[in-house]
Amino acid sequence: MQSLTVHLHDFIRDVRLTEEEWNTAIEFLTRVGHITDDKRQEFVLLSDTLGASMQTIAVNNEAYKDATEATVFGPFFVDDAPEVELGGDISFGAKGQPAWIEGTVTDTDGRPVPNARIEVWECDEDGFYDVQYDDDRTMARAHLYTDEHGEYRFWGLTPVPYPIPHDGPVGKMLAATGRSPIRAAHLHFMVTAPEHRTLVTHIFVEGDPQLEIGDSVFGVKDSLIKRFDEQPADTPTPDGRDLGDETWAKARFDIVLAPADA
Amino acid sequence: MQSLTVHLHDFIRDVRLTEEEWNTAIEFLTRVGHITDDKRQEFVLLSDTLGASMQTIAVNNEAYKDATEATVFGPFFVDDAPEVELGGDISFGAKGQPAWIEGTVTDTDGRPVPNARIEVWECDEDGFYDVQYDDDRTMARAHLYTDEHGEYRFWGLTPVPYPIPHDGPVGKMLAATGRSPIRAAHLHFMVTAPEHRTLVTHIFVEGDPQLEIGDSVFGVKDSLIKRFDEQPADTPTPDGRDLGDETWAKARFDIVLAPADA
Repeated sequence: MQSLTVHLHDFIRDVRLTEEEWNTAIEFLTRVGHITDDKRQEFVLLSDTLGASMQTIAVNNEAYKDATEATVFGPFFVDDAPEVELGGDISFGAKGQPAWIEGTVTDTDGRPVPNARIEVWECDEDGFYDVQYDDDRTMARAHLYTDEHGEYRFWGLTPVPYPIPHDGPVGKMLAATGRSPIRAAHLHFMVTAPEHRTLVTHIFVEGDPQLEIGDSVFGVKDSLIKRFDEQPADTPTPDGRDLGDETWAKARFDIVLAPADA
Repeated sequence: MQSLTVHLHDFIRDVRLTEEEWNTAIEFLTRVGHITDDKRQEFVLLSDTLGASMQTIAVNNEAYKDATEATVFGPFFVDDAPEVELGGDISFGAKGQPAWIEGTVTDTDGRPVPNARIEVWECDEDGFYDVQYDDDRTMARAHLYTDEHGEYRFWGLTPVPYPIPHDGPVGKMLAATGRSPIRAAHLHFMVTAPEHRTLVTHIFVEGDPQLEIGDSVFGVKDSLIKRFDEQPADTPTPDGRDLGDETWAKARFDIVLAPADA
């Protein structure tokens, strides 16, 4: 509380906040509070778009050797997503270009981490997560476990960019400051294994123009940008799956976990 | 916005904000938003109790020669309070010890400011402003004008300490940090006159124990603490008013206005 008040007062002195600006701030926060409900968390959006969420991630996930970097958790994770076997399809019918994603989970000494639990979740090609639909669908989310070599593989969807909800006060703030509400295309990962630091991260898509424009929540780290190699229709798939005349993509994401006490 | 994000991020790094603390902050702000409505402004209470309101007042009302100091406006001002004549009674039946308040309004060169408009408002002896009652009463608030010598006088009530609304999240924050929700006893003034800087201030009551404990919104300035001299019952009043067997108090507040361009 002491640090909070010191920084808050420093800000007010810095910008010589006018009483009109103070009133505007009170009104803005009131609107943020009033639009927030069980389904919509505008304060999280505000924290995300001010980079406060990423800063919190940063101070809680210090770089350790070559361990994979963390990024924002976001509001769309769901407990108890279904399990899929290695090579299974997490999309469960969600629309989008199929993407084969594979990689390893190792520790910072290069040793495989078998049986690591990998949670993955993403939006469909329209930019919506399953929980944003008004039915109870469970799509484009699952968990799976690495094999004895620390390897994993699954079918998902090639990520697409989508806007954060921007019809509320945070959207107005972004517009007023000339910022895009769009998040760079990404696929969420959360990786847990005993004796290792839990990793919450995304992978981003090399070549996504939003990477240049800027991710609206500042989640991008260069090390997390991966190539999604688009394959022409009829290219044989790694597991022999027949995708008919669909194109598909493949990507590799090798994950390195820090030790729990790092 | 740039300064806001810099200071916000500095705070997060300073305290090494944990993800649990971040979650608590989001929940706290959500509760502040949800309790706020047309009658209750918890964000203003939050700003007040963090000293942010006083800091904003400070940067907008720089000290100028011996001009009277400003303090918080508070949420209880009402436009169009009734006018009283000089020497009139602003209590309109509100309960409390009668107090005769008089003084002058001058500029920083000591010249009287005639016809300055003085708005005054205060709580009753139970600690409530008229607008906090569920009826439409107008009590303990009025406006009046200085005479040709810049003098004013009126009957009000001896101010009493009262708690800010503390049954919500801000009250929980005060309790968690061991702080009192009580405001030091005070009487609000707003003084306007052409070519002078508008003055929003209070006077506080010398000897009020809350001055030692601490005003919950940090509004106190030594220069604003005034003696309310209690008079035994039957002491003749300045205007001959018969108060029966009531005690009463008298106080003096000489107001000095800065020029508008100061």
